[in-house]
Amino acid sequence: MEPLFATRQTEALVPRIREFVLNELVPLETTDYLTGNFSTVARVLDQKRELVRKAGLWGLQHSIDEGGLGLSLCEFGQVSEVLAWSPFGHYTFNCQAPDIGNMELMHRHAPDVLRNQYLEPLKEGQIRSCFSMTEPEFAGSNPTRLGTVAERDGDDWVINGHKWFTSSADGSAFAIVMAVTSPDDAPHRRASMILVPTDTPGFERVRNISIMGEPSDHWGSHAEVRYTNVRVPVGNLIGAEGMGFALAQERLGPGRIHHCMRWIGISERCLDLMCRRAATREMEDGVMLGEKQFVQGWIAESRARIDAARLMVLRTAHNIDQQGAAAVRDQISEIKFFVADVMLTVIDRAIQTYGAMGITDDIVLPWYYRHERGARIYDGADEVHKTALARSILKGYGLDTRKPKPATTRSDA
Amino acid sequence: MEPLFATRQTEALVPRIREFVLNELVPLETTDYLTGNFSTVARVLDQKRELVRKAGLWGLQHSIDEGGLGLSLCEFGQVSEVLAWSPFGHYTFNCQAPDIGNMELMHRHAPDVLRNQYLEPLKEGQIRSCFSMTEPEFAGSNPTRLGTVAERDGDDWVINGHKWFTSSADGSAFAIVMAVTSPDDAPHRRASMILVPTDTPGFERVRNISIMGEPSDHWGSHAEVRYTNVRVPVGNLIGAEGMGFALAQERLGPGRIHHCMRWIGISERCLDLMCRRAATREMEDGVMLGEKQFVQGWIAESRARIDAARLMVLRTAHNIDQQGAAAVRDQISEIKFFVADVMLTVIDRAIQTYGAMGITDDIVLPWYYRHERGARIYDGADEVHKTALARSILKGYGLDTRKPKPATTRSDA
Amino acid sequence: MEPLFATRQTEALVPRIREFVLNELVPLETTDYLTGNFSTVARVLDQKRELVRKAGLWGLQHSIDEGGLGLSLCEFGQVSEVLAWSPFGHYTFNCQAPDIGNMELMHRHAPDVLRNQYLEPLKEGQIRSCFSMTEPEFAGSNPTRLGTVAERDGDDWVINGHKWFTSSADGSAFAIVMAVTSPDDAPHRRASMILVPTDTPGFERVRNISIMGEPSDHWGSHAEVRYTNVRVPVGNLIGAEGMGFALAQERLGPGRIHHCMRWIGISERCLDLMCRRAATREMEDGVMLGEKQFVQGWIAESRARIDAARLMVLRTAHNIDQQGAAAVRDQISEIKFFVADVMLTVIDRAIQTYGAMGITDDIVLPWYYRHERGARIYDGADEVHKTALARSILKGYGLDTRKPKPATTRSDA
Amino acid sequence: MEPLFATRQTEALVPRIREFVLNELVPLETTDYLTGNFSTVARVLDQKRELVRKAGLWGLQHSIDEGGLGLSLCEFGQVSEVLAWSPFGHYTFNCQAPDIGNMELMHRHAPDVLRNQYLEPLKEGQIRSCFSMTEPEFAGSNPTRLGTVAERDGDDWVINGHKWFTSSADGSAFAIVMAVTSPDDAPHRRASMILVPTDTPGFERVRNISIMGEPSDHWGSHAEVRYTNVRVPVGNLIGAEGMGFALAQERLGPGRIHHCMRWIGISERCLDLMCRRAATREMEDGVMLGEKQFVQGWIAESRARIDAARLMVLRTAHNIDQQGAAAVRDQISEIKFFVADVMLTVIDRAIQTYGAMGITDDIVLPWYYRHERGARIYDGADEVHKTALARSILKGYGLDTRKPKPATTRSDA
Repeated sequence: MEPLFATRQTEALVPRIREFVLNELVPLETTDYLTGNFSTVARVLDQKRELVRKAGLWGLQHSIDEGGLGLSLCEFGQVSEVLAWSPFGHYTFNCQAPDIGNMELMHRHAPDVLRNQYLEPLKEGQIRSCFSMTEPEFAGSNPTRLGTVAERDGDDWVINGHKWFTSSADGSAFAIVMAVTSPDDAPHRRASMILVPTDTPGFERVRNISIMGEPSDHWGSHAEVRYTNVRVPVGNLIGAEGMGFALAQERLGPGRIHHCMRWIGISERCLDLMCRRAATREMEDGVMLGEKQFVQGWIAESRARIDAARLMVLRTAHNIDQQGAAAVRDQISEIKFFVADVMLTVIDRAIQTYGAMGITDDIVLPWYYRHERGARIYDGADEVHKTALARSILKGYGLDTRKPKPATTRSDA
Repeated sequence: MEPLFATRQTEALVPRIREFVLNELVPLETTDYLTGNFSTVARVLDQKRELVRKAGLWGLQHSIDEGGLGLSLCEFGQVSEVLAWSPFGHYTFNCQAPDIGNMELMHRHAPDVLRNQYLEPLKEGQIRSCFSMTEPEFAGSNPTRLGTVAERDGDDWVINGHKWFTSSADGSAFAIVMAVTSPDDAPHRRASMILVPTDTPGFERVRNISIMGEPSDHWGSHAEVRYTNVRVPVGNLIGAEGMGFALAQERLGPGRIHHCMRWIGISERCLDLMCRRAATREMEDGVMLGEKQFVQGWIAESRARIDAARLMVLRTAHNIDQQGAAAVRDQISEIKFFVADVMLTVIDRAIQTYGAMGITDDIVLPWYYRHERGARIYDGADEVHKTALARSILKGYGLDTRKPKPATTRSDA
Repeated sequence: MEPLFATRQTEALVPRIREFVLNELVPLETTDYLTGNFSTVARVLDQKRELVRKAGLWGLQHSIDEGGLGLSLCEFGQVSEVLAWSPFGHYTFNCQAPDIGNMELMHRHAPDVLRNQYLEPLKEGQIRSCFSMTEPEFAGSNPTRLGTVAERDGDDWVINGHKWFTSSADGSAFAIVMAVTSPDDAPHRRASMILVPTDTPGFERVRNISIMGEPSDHWGSHAEVRYTNVRVPVGNLIGAEGMGFALAQERLGPGRIHHCMRWIGISERCLDLMCRRAATREMEDGVMLGEKQFVQGWIAESRARIDAARLMVLRTAHNIDQQGAAAVRDQISEIKFFVADVMLTVIDRAIQTYGAMGITDDIVLPWYYRHERGARIYDGADEVHKTALARSILKGYGLDTRKPKPATTRSDA
Repeated sequence: MEPLFATRQTEALVPRIREFVLNELVPLETTDYLTGNFSTVARVLDQKRELVRKAGLWGLQHSIDEGGLGLSLCEFGQVSEVLAWSPFGHYTFNCQAPDIGNMELMHRHAPDVLRNQYLEPLKEGQIRSCFSMTEPEFAGSNPTRLGTVAERDGDDWVINGHKWFTSSADGSAFAIVMAVTSPDDAPHRRASMILVPTDTPGFERVRNISIMGEPSDHWGSHAEVRYTNVRVPVGNLIGAEGMGFALAQERLGPGRIHHCMRWIGISERCLDLMCRRAATREMEDGVMLGEKQFVQGWIAESRARIDAARLMVLRTAHNIDQQGAAAVRDQISEIKFFVADVMLTVIDRAIQTYGAMGITDDIVLPWYYRHERGARIYDGADEVHKTALARSILKGYGLDTRKPKPATTRSDA
């Protein structure tokens, strides 16, 4: 915990949750659970969810009017960090992506009927949901390029399209799908978000995409989905027509904080594992691994960089709380690539510290190594955020990198 | 191919083998084969082995007196590179580790009876073998610390010990095990290599260790093995008693070349994939990924570093051919950490170039990402080779870093 | 400015000082002043010091009882950052090292007579001082190894020794010298600090050591000094006998904050220069340097890392203010190597952004490049702080890396 | 020396030259010579040049018909490496840039009259010369953008323009200037090279640009030059009209080899210094700096990377010798950024190894640190070569990054 951002709430909550994670979830890091499909471990986690409820910790991310604790983003970030000490933390507390994002979105923008039918059971953990945006045919770095279309037909939307990385689709009750509804509007006004129950005819989960050697299933799945003449009522619109990108944008700020604090929790966990190994592994008679300067360097650099990362993310969360996400868009870009880099470096060095054991599933490290490589890619590749940040800075120096260009006889990008 | 090291043999062989790999093996990179246990793909590869035989390419690594082509290490290295364009190349040509190392070892040091019984079918691909050296209780970076013991009892060795990372043990006909036979000799003279048929009572393959999410099996396995009063004839000794480390050392030079050239082949493959993506992925209207400087930087740096790596490895191979491994021990350390770093960086950048697709098993990249992380660890962690190289260099400046130290009141390593 | 740490004082002061630095000091960055000895520019800076007095900004680092503003360390750090936008900022405001450290030290620990005679004119900028600790014969990373000795002879100390990097000695009125006074005590209790007027017989400034091509003089000097039977009254002791290291340690916390915030100011200045160039340098018709991704990457990464660095340093300053330096010793180590690395990377990239112009003294960048390379070395090399931090962390895991070691037959550090 | 590229000539020459450099030039690395203007040391070097002549080593870079040794580029590269063990090596042997490049150019392309009048005394070391290409107003990365113009007026060229980084202009007898002679031709056919005696009216050396704190003079100068109605005979043309870029290009291949081998020599020298320090500097009682893993890591990585760099450069030189520079243009780009990076990293680590002493002019390291930072910039910034290499590679994949673009409404480079 960083005392600068500690509040009465975090001081009360964080140690309790840390305790829960260490006692109830970390012991689940067996080879079977770490390498099996998610449905295997989900059965146990459902029991753990009961313990969460009993401990009065269920739904802690919700606002007070929703029956939650009304944590600020900066407070929840600190909770998210300790949840991340286990790969199963967020799921057990029902604040896993993409459900947490869908809950926030629906709480703000879904009509009552959808909220009653879908949001309530989602909050109770009775159903799961997915978010269907990325398309294989278009670069994710440019979200206004979208092939999926929803056309108005009477009181229905008729949706056709092809998505992938619709995460957690397997077993979800519904998807929120991003589709072009106003193709002739300005690029950022073309799309809308529509709720599609996954049992609607024409919704086809083609496959769970195998990622890093593991197709997985259940919440752990990343699905390819085809929408073929999928018909849902017009009332399934989330927010207003053409607001798809605005809502996606709104989702991004808090979502970035969630992810980044999760990455910091992972980094801390891996540093902790690194130190345990360094303190106990004998290399020669009486000489421990932690006495080697190479390992000392990894530990010191990891410590410094994780501290830096946490301060940056909590500062950003604090600023979103105070001023809204729009005011600190640059900071939101900044933490994306900064924290992903810290995490992936720390994971890698933890593996190296463990030697041969570090690549075995006897330990959680390979799980992180495989599952978190995507951090540099999803939510906009690091490179996209770097250029966005630089452009925003350079605008302050009078350079508009997006000004129209004349035709050229050659390009020298 | 690097023309500097091209010979009549490589000029004839390499293009044929490249052709074979591209036509017969690269098409096997389906999600099923890339994520399944090795036995799944082994069935297909056995058919491909027939094609290798028909093409007259079987056994190309053997010396002329063994019916091979008598390639020099430097020549075989260049073959090894093109084999590595597929994860299945070396296996298909029956020059996969650890069998290739065992064949070399037995060819030189096994008594005739063992050669007839085990080496011949190994060379024919009728059986497989494993090498049993690493122990979980001792740091692999110091190979003289060994817990496995072979005691002489009449005409038998009686072996007791605990090993892991006995790679490919699952399905192997025999293991070559490293065990202490002369515990009172100098550390480097204590151990011997003994051939143990895996059906010997007391040889227990405890499990295939799950690595990076995948237990695998068959040639793809990495086994934990227990030896409990395993009894084999004294004639099963490979080389002389107490020569275990000397033989392991002898094995290292060529083994390092094999590995490093394989890593370079993998790097080339990944750079090729990176360029294919860069040249064909549209980011905006008419602007291809390859026009972005970030990607151009990755391509250029990868190209330069791979070229550097190849020159270093082939130079080292050439020198081993000319002067023997002992004369260029520093170069053999050098290529270990240099090439592993190049490969892992190129793999990582190739993944980044593919975006979301880069972490899916629709492409071979995650296979390399998972299976090759160990390159920084096995055969001595990079750090071990760096310190070994530095110490050897500093010896030339009069500093003996291994000289005895007086007792200290504190240590500041 | 980082709003998290803004106070009424910093909000009032920082913009005024920034204005002063930009208007009065940045224009002094001419080739002559950037490449000449310091005495050349000192003449102009003395005039600027008058402006500082007139503006009521003189002595802002002092406590209220000393007639200063009573800024906390965290507040002064923010001032220090903006002063660092010019190489001449700290000197002009009379809060340059080593004088600022000597002032703090004497304010707390010097007897009244020394304070009246030396501290007061020092605070007024009428004299300058130096700090004489580092010795060429001993590694600075282990400050308890010290060859300079002060022996008691009647009412005098008689000092003999050899120092270098006695910064600013040229023209200083006095030195505070670290000398062994109790050679038989525990290593950390052996030395004392003694004030030596530089006109004392036996104090010999051997030379101004040429650093990075520039011997300089005046405040810009780094002197080699010999002490030969230098005799000063016993009353010239600063603090108690044997307290030399404790005082040096005490000096370190605030000193580290001063340095690190100065480094952050330098980083900001260089990033600003980088952006100015990127926004205005045309590479081809209508294509500006800032449209190139390489440059965008440097800008974005620099922005993120500087933000991280500032948060870390101000957090540490805040904690020193609240809890004292001893409580956050790890953080004080952490910022040393983290911030030095950020600064040197940003300087280097700024140079690259300017192309050929970046290595000319037409611009301030080479000044920073030459003068700040030492940041990785002085106050303990980065490596020393990394190992110190790692050891402290590992102590929490039960590993005491300083425990006595038995004699060994070889060492494998 | 790399045995792969050793020849009878290099085996005879290299040890003799190494001996000369170590005995005659390395002792000149005093603070005075390292920090003074070049004219100070030039007086001594002129005496050393006499020793070179006496030793029969003068003019070794020339072809046999010019009275030289007829070394191949690959052979001369190996000589260049050992010359670089001293900052004064190349000058002493009269094969310093830009004179060596001007000699090659004039030997091939200058009319007899110019060769007699200028080339002969240049080869004898009686005069010096400079090369006047870079202009402050245009990015050096795009050499076809040029403001200097030479207009034909009767039998004269009348030259007007503004140059900088006309290296060694101070004291030179003549400049070879690049000027636009055919403004309406295709960009690569617009310019020509013209020889201008520096005493021609209108040739004004505005100043020696101060670089990294040092204006220097003589051969060490980097001048800003104005050409105002400079009138020279039409016969002063080097090569044909409009061939300026072709000749500059021709100059580049061998010039790159010269530079890169010089950088490798510098790297070797710094690694040697690093090892000397590591082997002799005591950190604690009986523990030498070289026993620390951090330092071991720097030594090992430096060793590996320098070896890699040398292999790459000599391979490229060998290929230029065999096939001409045009055939291996990619390799010529590759070595530029690869070797510059190696050198600058090794210099930096050598400084760090020396601690405080590493930034003093008591040792040669700061000289390299200051003078060689430009390596990432001159002859095309590293970034330019990376993009050039990547584009060339991607062309092989069907992507033409220079194809004409339609007008866009925004740019996303």
